[in-house]
Amino acid sequence: MKIVIAPNTFKECLSAPKVAAAMARGTRRAWPEAEIVQVPLADGGDGTVEALVAARNGRIVEMTANDPLMRPVKVKYGLFDNDSAAVIEMAAASGLWRLKDTEKNPLKTTTFGTGEMIRDALNRGVRSIIVGIGGSATTDAGIGMAAALGYRFYDEHENELAPIGESMNLTARIDASDVHEALKEAKFYVASDVVNPLLGPQGAAPVYGPQKGATPDMVKTLETGLAVVASRWQADLGAKIGDLPGGGAAGGLGAGMKAFCGAEIRSGFDLIADYAHLDEALEGAMLILTGEGKIDASTQFGKVPAGVVRRAQIKGIPVIGFAGNLSGDSEQKTGQGMTALFSIVPRPISLAEAIQNAESYLEQTVEQVIRLWRYCSR
Amino acid sequence: MKIVIAPNTFKECLSAPKVAAAMARGTRRAWPEAEIVQVPLADGGDGTVEALVAARNGRIVEMTANDPLMRPVKVKYGLFDNDSAAVIEMAAASGLWRLKDTEKNPLKTTTFGTGEMIRDALNRGVRSIIVGIGGSATTDAGIGMAAALGYRFYDEHENELAPIGESMNLTARIDASDVHEALKEAKFYVASDVVNPLLGPQGAAPVYGPQKGATPDMVKTLETGLAVVASRWQADLGAKIGDLPGGGAAGGLGAGMKAFCGAEIRSGFDLIADYAHLDEALEGAMLILTGEGKIDASTQFGKVPAGVVRRAQIKGIPVIGFAGNLSGDSEQKTGQGMTALFSIVPRPISLAEAIQNAESYLEQTVEQVIRLWRYCSR
Repeated sequence: MKIVIAPNTFKECLSAPKVAAAMARGTRRAWPEAEIVQVPLADGGDGTVEALVAARNGRIVEMTANDPLMRPVKVKYGLFDNDSAAVIEMAAASGLWRLKDTEKNPLKTTTFGTGEMIRDALNRGVRSIIVGIGGSATTDAGIGMAAALGYRFYDEHENELAPIGESMNLTARIDASDVHEALKEAKFYVASDVVNPLLGPQGAAPVYGPQKGATPDMVKTLETGLAVVASRWQADLGAKIGDLPGGGAAGGLGAGMKAFCGAEIRSGFDLIADYAHLDEALEGAMLILTGEGKIDASTQFGKVPAGVVRRAQIKGIPVIGFAGNLSGDSEQKTGQGMTALFSIVPRPISLAEAIQNAESYLEQTVEQVIRLWRYCSR
Repeated sequence: MKIVIAPNTFKECLSAPKVAAAMARGTRRAWPEAEIVQVPLADGGDGTVEALVAARNGRIVEMTANDPLMRPVKVKYGLFDNDSAAVIEMAAASGLWRLKDTEKNPLKTTTFGTGEMIRDALNRGVRSIIVGIGGSATTDAGIGMAAALGYRFYDEHENELAPIGESMNLTARIDASDVHEALKEAKFYVASDVVNPLLGPQGAAPVYGPQKGATPDMVKTLETGLAVVASRWQADLGAKIGDLPGGGAAGGLGAGMKAFCGAEIRSGFDLIADYAHLDEALEGAMLILTGEGKIDASTQFGKVPAGVVRRAQIKGIPVIGFAGNLSGDSEQKTGQGMTALFSIVPRPISLAEAIQNAESYLEQTVEQVIRLWRYCSR
């Protein structure tokens, strides 16, 4: 009896590896003889580094990088496959969580810190880099990131520009003559589940600008700026972005990763699931457990549970879901392909109590479900 | 596929019939073709009338009776089997919930109202009466109940006594010459899961007196009074109570029901389960669902879930439990014979929200469990 445990992080509560470990303990209590395979997952957002480092037996490295307002902060990213590959969350350096509310202003913020992390990895000899993008404080089309890798941005008077949001409008030339020499041999993947294009009504500025502090006027300025940079990509770098899905992710960093680094944009879930060898793990499995901190079934499962269900259905394996917070109607929930879906909350409690005891609650709920499963499948 | 649904009330939230109905809806959503048999249960306490009336297609009657301080209040009890049998909760008239904190005083309170309900049933021709006892405000050895049925209590000067707690000490003679004529032909059952005897350190006064408002001095007075009444039972009625288990239930009403009415004291769960034909319902069942508002597994299941498990184990049928509030460790819980045990709480919420939405939460959780069961038992 092979049981695959493939959860997402419980956001702001438990990392995916910890979720998987708790599920494994509950499974083992109910069925000591079961073969348990843990495949902690992520969708390119929070927890992507932890999940991939766990899946590939990698390690975490620490460094100093600049935050969205160019203040030095401690950041972490992951190395794996004998330090030949790296996984970086852009939000580590360039995330909105780094700023106070009063500091949020996408005209002033930059993805420079994300570029520093990439540079650090390249300098270590890494030639395969996954960048999970989401939760950014920026709308700079990735010019900050690019500047850290040696790109230079000039205005029409050939003055060098600071690589921040408001400089996009002024960009008259992009200079690639001094870029990091490893750029052309390295392979970049962007993990993103945002499909918005760079420009237009569904683009980075109007859709995501306001939550980063952009006023309506600033949104217009940013939209123009993104278009200016896109035209320079084509003219100076020969890179056509157009309406590439995901180009608008992380304030245009999606498009920028492609234009500046030749990155391939992929679904965060699929990318991480492939790196974590999910499909191989599912071979011969009788049951899959997945989960996410919050599942609002009225809309759709989170990216990870939905992705797990999709891959499980191909192989005809049942999926049972667990969440700290279930919303919406169960008929809708399970109509999306799970065999069953359970909350881990044992009684009326506060959010703080739920978070504090999540590992124990999860373990106990999984134990009950596996007891039931084991009984039925005698 | 026959599924038996045999829950207790969710106290202060849902009656057992409503719990069973919600579980049945969840089951039907997950498995429309399943044969569902609803057997709402009780343990002699809260919800006993509702459960038995539902189980036997009876009806509820209303009347006025006196509360523990002899104030008229509206009360209900149940009739069934073509009005030949009645089920009465002593707490309806004589319960502690009828009193404000400042009114709690077992020297002054009486079970008279319970006796009035019995009298009302006898006057309707009922000759089989179940009295669920628990939650009483009284420690009167049932002399109040008896007075409503025609017993008279006299002091050593042959003055008639008011049938309240403090009169027990003064009782020099019990007069049975004018008791209700149906008493000798009627059959009485006391449903109680309290096994305390009338007297001694585990007796009614020291164990339950304090929660009814008795000070240490009052406990001594009550203990002496209970002993005086017990000696009168033997001398005047020829009734020996001794250390009858359950004699101390409801402030000695257990013993009083036997002495004054010839009642048989039985386990509340067993009595109600038998009346509700639980064993017959279990014939051929593949699965049993039970539940209770709160299950504290560190100590023991509630009387109903534990009783259902006991009867299920004899027949080798698995039991799945549901609760609004699970405490204790799941290993202990399920070590007590359930196949699995689930909370119905979908996310961190307040008690008020849990109570308000309990039916919907229960239905949805049962649906998920039955989906799982159905999948496994294909």
